[in-house]
Amino acid sequence: MNPLASWITLLLGVFYVCVGLVVAPSLAEAAADREKLLTEPGVYGTFATFRLNDSWMKQDQATRISQLTLFKGVVEQHREKIAIDLYLLRGMSGHADLMFRVHAAELRDTQQFLVDLQGNAFGKYLTGTGLMHGVTKKANYVPGFPDQLKADLKVASDPWPKPYAIVIPVRKSADWWALDQEKRAVMMREHTEATLPYLKTIKRKLYHSSGLDDLDFITYFETSKLEDFHSLILSLEQVREFQYTPRFGHPTLMGTVKSLDELIEAFAQ
Amino acid sequence: MNPLASWITLLLGVFYVCVGLVVAPSLAEAAADREKLLTEPGVYGTFATFRLNDSWMKQDQATRISQLTLFKGVVEQHREKIAIDLYLLRGMSGHADLMFRVHAAELRDTQQFLVDLQGNAFGKYLTGTGLMHGVTKKANYVPGFPDQLKADLKVASDPWPKPYAIVIPVRKSADWWALDQEKRAVMMREHTEATLPYLKTIKRKLYHSSGLDDLDFITYFETSKLEDFHSLILSLEQVREFQYTPRFGHPTLMGTVKSLDELIEAFAQ
Amino acid sequence: MNPLASWITLLLGVFYVCVGLVVAPSLAEAAADREKLLTEPGVYGTFATFRLNDSWMKQDQATRISQLTLFKGVVEQHREKIAIDLYLLRGMSGHADLMFRVHAAELRDTQQFLVDLQGNAFGKYLTGTGLMHGVTKKANYVPGFPDQLKADLKVASDPWPKPYAIVIPVRKSADWWALDQEKRAVMMREHTEATLPYLKTIKRKLYHSSGLDDLDFITYFETSKLEDFHSLILSLEQVREFQYTPRFGHPTLMGTVKSLDELIEAFAQ
Amino acid sequence: MNPLASWITLLLGVFYVCVGLVVAPSLAEAAADREKLLTEPGVYGTFATFRLNDSWMKQDQATRISQLTLFKGVVEQHREKIAIDLYLLRGMSGHADLMFRVHAAELRDTQQFLVDLQGNAFGKYLTGTGLMHGVTKKANYVPGFPDQLKADLKVASDPWPKPYAIVIPVRKSADWWALDQEKRAVMMREHTEATLPYLKTIKRKLYHSSGLDDLDFITYFETSKLEDFHSLILSLEQVREFQYTPRFGHPTLMGTVKSLDELIEAFAQ
Amino acid sequence: MNPLASWITLLLGVFYVCVGLVVAPSLAEAAADREKLLTEPGVYGTFATFRLNDSWMKQDQATRISQLTLFKGVVEQHREKIAIDLYLLRGMSGHADLMFRVHAAELRDTQQFLVDLQGNAFGKYLTGTGLMHGVTKKANYVPGFPDQLKADLKVASDPWPKPYAIVIPVRKSADWWALDQEKRAVMMREHTEATLPYLKTIKRKLYHSSGLDDLDFITYFETSKLEDFHSLILSLEQVREFQYTPRFGHPTLMGTVKSLDELIEAFAQ
Repeated sequence: MNPLASWITLLLGVFYVCVGLVVAPSLAEAAADREKLLTEPGVYGTFATFRLNDSWMKQDQATRISQLTLFKGVVEQHREKIAIDLYLLRGMSGHADLMFRVHAAELRDTQQFLVDLQGNAFGKYLTGTGLMHGVTKKANYVPGFPDQLKADLKVASDPWPKPYAIVIPVRKSADWWALDQEKRAVMMREHTEATLPYLKTIKRKLYHSSGLDDLDFITYFETSKLEDFHSLILSLEQVREFQYTPRFGHPTLMGTVKSLDELIEAFAQ
Repeated sequence: MNPLASWITLLLGVFYVCVGLVVAPSLAEAAADREKLLTEPGVYGTFATFRLNDSWMKQDQATRISQLTLFKGVVEQHREKIAIDLYLLRGMSGHADLMFRVHAAELRDTQQFLVDLQGNAFGKYLTGTGLMHGVTKKANYVPGFPDQLKADLKVASDPWPKPYAIVIPVRKSADWWALDQEKRAVMMREHTEATLPYLKTIKRKLYHSSGLDDLDFITYFETSKLEDFHSLILSLEQVREFQYTPRFGHPTLMGTVKSLDELIEAFAQ
Repeated sequence: MNPLASWITLLLGVFYVCVGLVVAPSLAEAAADREKLLTEPGVYGTFATFRLNDSWMKQDQATRISQLTLFKGVVEQHREKIAIDLYLLRGMSGHADLMFRVHAAELRDTQQFLVDLQGNAFGKYLTGTGLMHGVTKKANYVPGFPDQLKADLKVASDPWPKPYAIVIPVRKSADWWALDQEKRAVMMREHTEATLPYLKTIKRKLYHSSGLDDLDFITYFETSKLEDFHSLILSLEQVREFQYTPRFGHPTLMGTVKSLDELIEAFAQ
Repeated sequence: MNPLASWITLLLGVFYVCVGLVVAPSLAEAAADREKLLTEPGVYGTFATFRLNDSWMKQDQATRISQLTLFKGVVEQHREKIAIDLYLLRGMSGHADLMFRVHAAELRDTQQFLVDLQGNAFGKYLTGTGLMHGVTKKANYVPGFPDQLKADLKVASDPWPKPYAIVIPVRKSADWWALDQEKRAVMMREHTEATLPYLKTIKRKLYHSSGLDDLDFITYFETSKLEDFHSLILSLEQVREFQYTPRFGHPTLMGTVKSLDELIEAFAQ
Repeated sequence: MNPLASWITLLLGVFYVCVGLVVAPSLAEAAADREKLLTEPGVYGTFATFRLNDSWMKQDQATRISQLTLFKGVVEQHREKIAIDLYLLRGMSGHADLMFRVHAAELRDTQQFLVDLQGNAFGKYLTGTGLMHGVTKKANYVPGFPDQLKADLKVASDPWPKPYAIVIPVRKSADWWALDQEKRAVMMREHTEATLPYLKTIKRKLYHSSGLDDLDFITYFETSKLEDFHSLILSLEQVREFQYTPRFGHPTLMGTVKSLDELIEAFAQ
């Protein structure tokens, strides 16, 4: 860490202590059961991307740091109820500078967080560039898969950190939905088999979006090996199911996973 | 309600009383027959969405409250003639911050409301992001349905509050309109049957838009269970009629139903 | 008319008298033969839409009125040569706040008007959002229609005022133009027969645009019954010719017909 | 010419004389061989369109005139090497206010002109809205045409001034390029025959763009009779080759041909 | 070089010396192995385009030069780890003013460069207009080509400078990926044979993008003969493989290759 970064961290620390005296009691309450929100079905997942306005950099650093501290307070306050992940998209995606992935039992709670975020001193410098919602569900086709495939799918992913996150929205064609469940199941088995070589290095999570957005699915990935991820997608483009996918990406969102403090530091400098 | 919110409500109250002395007489006149406008055929429905400009938040709170009071006056004045519903879209839809649903006997009356709204002190901070019109009509295909289906459709929706509203514009293909009425009726029966399991938890209203906009229909939904709504749309994507629907959504608008006072409070903070 | 509107009208009157002393002589010259421009073939029709910038409302009313007076002068001056109709789109169309329909013997004259308009004090607050051109021609298919149909087409439209105007740009497919004239004539007869029930309540005018714009036709309508207009378009969507129409609308422009003074009053308030 | 215009011309004259003392020596050098650039193959043609920002009109006239004088200097300096034509698009095309058509032996020279233009005091008020490149080539299909058609094509266009210019970018389908040369030649003969009735009143120039832009061709036209031009395009839409043209226009650019002084005068007022 | 340019160069020189005293030590460290990054597989290539804001030119020249010096420092610092090429797009591409091509072993390093660039004093005047990523891989189809074709491909390109660079993003259709590898190989052989006549005058580099962006490939070209490049693309449009390419360009980016100093000089003036 260079001296400037250290200085910022120190300064932020002082701010946090002061603010902490006030907000600490509420923070002491039980935080959202993050593990549950990230694994159970029936949870609403939201991907919200923002661009940081030019005028942000025109403020002096002290002002920026005090605004980021208020921003930190908003995130921490809502983390009592919902799970919030943060990503730096600037320099990796042309569509946004930062992204929030939010998991909540009710979409109203996510809305309240985003309203508070935009009403916040830091929020005034953010322009929304995209908002996508989906809901988690139990696996649809897996129960009908052969036992060997089911077993193969249980391979755990590597324990290494996975710094890159990719979000790919998907829309299936009307022809896809017109197929009977069995035909779709056969193709989804091909699709799933194509993913097997990548289970270790690529984590994946699926959100169902029909009706909640102009999409059918949001697919979310984490990896430390982008070349592997490229190979995975290339494999998926070659199975029959891909021909029923008029929208894949548009946008493809790519960024790096950041903690709240890391993101604040990136924007404080 | 937190102390800040209470204080705002109090302040707004004082303003309302002052303003009330002036506008009260006109408000005393008979309000628009909202029930009639919301149920009868031949009524024009308008969906107008707006983004709240960044500069809004840069004003101090007292100024914002006085402007919101004028805004409240405009809505109340026009409610004498037309029915106006309000929705908070910020944090739920990437396309807008707020939405008005207006029902009027003449589209000119809706135009006058929107002109007054934009000419208003609060209106200067609004940028229109979408405007869609449709007209209500008697059910087209229902009279030809079997008696059992007709009976099933009469199930009333749950009395519980339905906080979420979704608007999905629809455009049918030229191939759809080229089908004879009978073939379309068969497919619309399939479509309708797919909706039966959701009649209780999802309220629905249909507007006909051909010629009034680049659409054929605007479909409006209210629900408290978004996962049910997702299931409904998934079912509708699987009936044959969906293959004649090149546009479904784009945008899908989603928000929470708000009273005028609730919306004002959200923007006053 | 409310007292504020009356006051504006009075103030505008005073301005007009003063300005009139200067511009009157030129206005005394013969005005464009509006009737001829609106009925003859070989006339160029232009539809120009504008949005009124936010900064317009930030000026005080006296300044706005003086600028609108100059605007009025520009329109009146050019009316000596070209026919200019005005429409309020705000609140009815999401694409613009106002629209000019101009008829001219030479498109250069229309260009000069629009250049003068934008160079004008009021013009600085206008942002162009669309510009479409077409030329009027003698009816192409009508001469070959059966006598009964020709007679039916001669029904005059109602004498009642028609406050609503709708503009729908149209692009035909390459397949349409590849059909021989006879096949197109059969389909245009079907199309024309579908319009018969609406001749009384809906006025229509056709402009040919191929080469002058990314369109083949601009269709212009006036009506007092928007529900009738919806029914007309629904009928037209059901004839075979519609299947050769990849673009119909996009945008559909809808507004209310206004006199120059009415439009000025709307923007002065 | 009205008195104001005369005054501007006078003022510009004074500026030109002063500036002339400095730039005259370089202007004395041989100008680009315009005739050669406009007729030979292997020349790069560029169509650059710009919008004039709102802030331009907010300056006083003297400032604007001095900036236009510097603009004039840039154009004249580069005319030593490249051919520059100017067009007023405002009021005729919704896509731009002015257009430059540049012919150069090397695209770098065109780039240098446009970089200097945008770095110029006047250039700061310009926002680029489009840039298209093509290269001139010897006629591809004509050598194989029958002698009579070749002779017909030699008809010179009318000597009358042709005030209107139209630019239509064209993209052919992959199916077109997959046809063998002979089949394309047959269709291009049909295409060419359709143009014969318009050779006198419409001048045409073709640029090949594949690889230099997201286009295959840029077609450029000049005419004094826009109705004739409309008829020409209508004829071209009816030959088979048109079915292999997924993009024709988008945008169609239309404007009036202006000399450098005429354009300056238009923007000085 | 004109006197003004000389003066700028001198001034920049003075700045560089001053800055050099501070940054020289770090610059002394080993620079990224550019040759390796530009030739090996498994390297991530990024194409980032930016527009220079209008406000840039409104600063005085000394301020601009000091900001460009800081910009130079950022590029040089990151060149220790990644390979950075620069291009002037203004006047050649309507989509951007400048472009960076970055090669890095890890996309995080490219992200850090772009974050630092935008956080820089010069970066505040840049607006991102596009960001595309790909990864280099060993040739896919070449190993299966006949020996003669392999030998033909080994022709080295001309040693002459190639001032023009063109970037064309490519997306293949689902039908392409559904073909078996052998059928694709036959078509890629045709594709490759079409490029043979241009190997000498056009340098080419391929990046694989599936999953990393809404693309399958980014193709990069350098040439001194744009007419040759046009002929190459025309040839490629005529092979069967092109029919499986729904996106070719959109945007086509074209510019001139510049050294860091040349680019700085262009923006300092």
